[in-house]
Amino acid sequence: MAERQEDFEQIDSFAEVVTLGEDEPLRLSSGETLSPFKVAYKCWGTLNEQRSNAILVCHALTGDQYARGKNPITGREGWWPKLIGPGLPIDTNKYFVICSNVLGSCSGSSGPKEINPATGEPYGLDFPVITIADMVSAQVRLIDHLKIDQLFSVIGGSMGGMQVLHWAANHKTRVKTAIPIASTWRHSAQNIAFHEVGRQAIMADPNWCDGRYFETEARPHAGLSVARMAAHITYMSERSLTSKFGRNLQDREKLTFGFDADFQVESYLRYQGISFVDRFDANSYLYITRAMDYYDISAEFEGSLTAVFENTPVKFCIMSFTSDWLYTTQESREIVRALNAVGAQVSFVEIEMDKGHDSFLLDCPEMFNIISGFLEAEAAFGGADEHE
Amino acid sequence: MAERQEDFEQIDSFAEVVTLGEDEPLRLSSGETLSPFKVAYKCWGTLNEQRSNAILVCHALTGDQYARGKNPITGREGWWPKLIGPGLPIDTNKYFVICSNVLGSCSGSSGPKEINPATGEPYGLDFPVITIADMVSAQVRLIDHLKIDQLFSVIGGSMGGMQVLHWAANHKTRVKTAIPIASTWRHSAQNIAFHEVGRQAIMADPNWCDGRYFETEARPHAGLSVARMAAHITYMSERSLTSKFGRNLQDREKLTFGFDADFQVESYLRYQGISFVDRFDANSYLYITRAMDYYDISAEFEGSLTAVFENTPVKFCIMSFTSDWLYTTQESREIVRALNAVGAQVSFVEIEMDKGHDSFLLDCPEMFNIISGFLEAEAAFGGADEHE
Repeated sequence: MAERQEDFEQIDSFAEVVTLGEDEPLRLSSGETLSPFKVAYKCWGTLNEQRSNAILVCHALTGDQYARGKNPITGREGWWPKLIGPGLPIDTNKYFVICSNVLGSCSGSSGPKEINPATGEPYGLDFPVITIADMVSAQVRLIDHLKIDQLFSVIGGSMGGMQVLHWAANHKTRVKTAIPIASTWRHSAQNIAFHEVGRQAIMADPNWCDGRYFETEARPHAGLSVARMAAHITYMSERSLTSKFGRNLQDREKLTFGFDADFQVESYLRYQGISFVDRFDANSYLYITRAMDYYDISAEFEGSLTAVFENTPVKFCIMSFTSDWLYTTQESREIVRALNAVGAQVSFVEIEMDKGHDSFLLDCPEMFNIISGFLEAEAAFGGADEHE
Repeated sequence: MAERQEDFEQIDSFAEVVTLGEDEPLRLSSGETLSPFKVAYKCWGTLNEQRSNAILVCHALTGDQYARGKNPITGREGWWPKLIGPGLPIDTNKYFVICSNVLGSCSGSSGPKEINPATGEPYGLDFPVITIADMVSAQVRLIDHLKIDQLFSVIGGSMGGMQVLHWAANHKTRVKTAIPIASTWRHSAQNIAFHEVGRQAIMADPNWCDGRYFETEARPHAGLSVARMAAHITYMSERSLTSKFGRNLQDREKLTFGFDADFQVESYLRYQGISFVDRFDANSYLYITRAMDYYDISAEFEGSLTAVFENTPVKFCIMSFTSDWLYTTQESREIVRALNAVGAQVSFVEIEMDKGHDSFLLDCPEMFNIISGFLEAEAAFGGADEHE
């Protein structure tokens, strides 16, 4: 272990899957335990001597640990390429950046697709239903493994932001600053409803086979594709769909009076569905949407959002987007209001951007500037660089 | 024919299926023709001697001719019970009210479920793809058959409103007043996107069998149910989902950490899906959503909404709902603006109601008052009652 630690402090970028919880099982919200469990993660930059410059990046529903660099599964660029890297807002010349695949997902961390050590075959639906809290518990174990006492920052958008809030609320001594973006403190009825449509689409696919499709040649691609299509609409604003596609026809001059993709928006959505199934596991989609639906950070505090953040030492930088109708600015404002009520340090910006929820994944200079400004100020104030 | 005419003028309520277009085929937007075709309709009230008191009620996507009274298919009350009837805003003591099942639907009018006279078996996907214009063409034939030169009014919500606008734009001498509610003048990219999700859910169901499921015992109920669930979310506002369900659990005290319907909103949505498949045909769902997606009333007027209504003699009463995010007030305002630009007579009300798009089907006293006021004023001005 010691030599591995030294190793990765020298290496600029590496991918790793670590097996944890062999001695101390991971106790889940459901009461079940995982032992052992795997966490797949990637790191960039160098951990300083004080181990005080680590930033944990939390991914969204269908994200993974490949926030930066080439994703070996898709062959495409990572999902936050303009945010993380040398000289970028999350500057890997200064910070040691960690991104781990969440529990229940399908890029190497324990989830329904992975082998159940108890049976030697894939978990499928035998994998325990997990929560955002459980995802964070696994991350805490990873941070322990990396011998980091306190993270300089935790950052994430959407479901990543939920993890950030959970870190700040439940592990307040282990995180200095928190940056939740385009996120919410609890899943609303409408949020749950959209996820339930996706789950029903997957479960309606006969190839799903009660989650045991790994025993067959077939995969529930049709259902997963429909789930992705429905969800994708919620990631874009009405306005961006209109300005991007409007009623434009797809490679044709006239309506065809059939059920082909006459409109560009249909073709685009179908592509979103079809391309998704190659990179994502249907059961993981069920588990992670469930975790998000179960998310209500106030639940363990008798429904009081103020109580969640009582006496928090964490400094917050919160961002929302004007056109996000999935997790609206209103929801971020409720978090800000609760933080103000307990006298927490919080800065909040609603960013004017018309691309909808997915704005946090796009090229958004204002967001980049806010993040680098916040991190720099915190570092100067006595954060990551204080002992350097 | 003559005796039937006399008959139904005496009868308060009747259901009828009429076969039309035997001599003169119905020419469709696609260029195809239907001959003969059936129109299933229902009437209430009595046609006056001048045949000037007829009101055509146009139904929405999954509606039917049973706007009032018991629906023989579902056994439930019609869909506009508080609007149409003796002493109600659309007063059947004064008006002769007609409601016909749209072409392509599944309550008796020609559609994919009905027998193709050319083959003696159900049309399935051999039924031609139809448009809102085609639905209205069939209604015009029905009105001809009923020997009504001019309708006193055409009224409808959602897709019903699209038909109303098409009547007013393309048959302007045959309609005196037009009342489109919670509607739009063209389907947006987001509207198309949601419909495409529904269609893909149906087509992904192996029981769909390329639309030839009538040859089998099975039905694409799973796919149709998912389609309905996705659509249903768009019919409600975020706020009404929150106030109705919030994060309330369904008949349980705690989360079950499984994939059952833990939340009331999940249970409600599943019920919406399951109960829909018994009353609606999956192919009809494909055809009617397609007709709505194809809808852009400005398309035949070189994209000019103003040109659509040039020199219109029709008087308009337009309503929208504050919380409708499917067909927003903005879209109604665009129609109003175009009507104002051509000096048309139009009254417009945005009704404060938090129930979302489906508000037009709910108990909405303000809507009822506006409709009765508008109709009464028009009747007094020299409309339906002028020769009585």
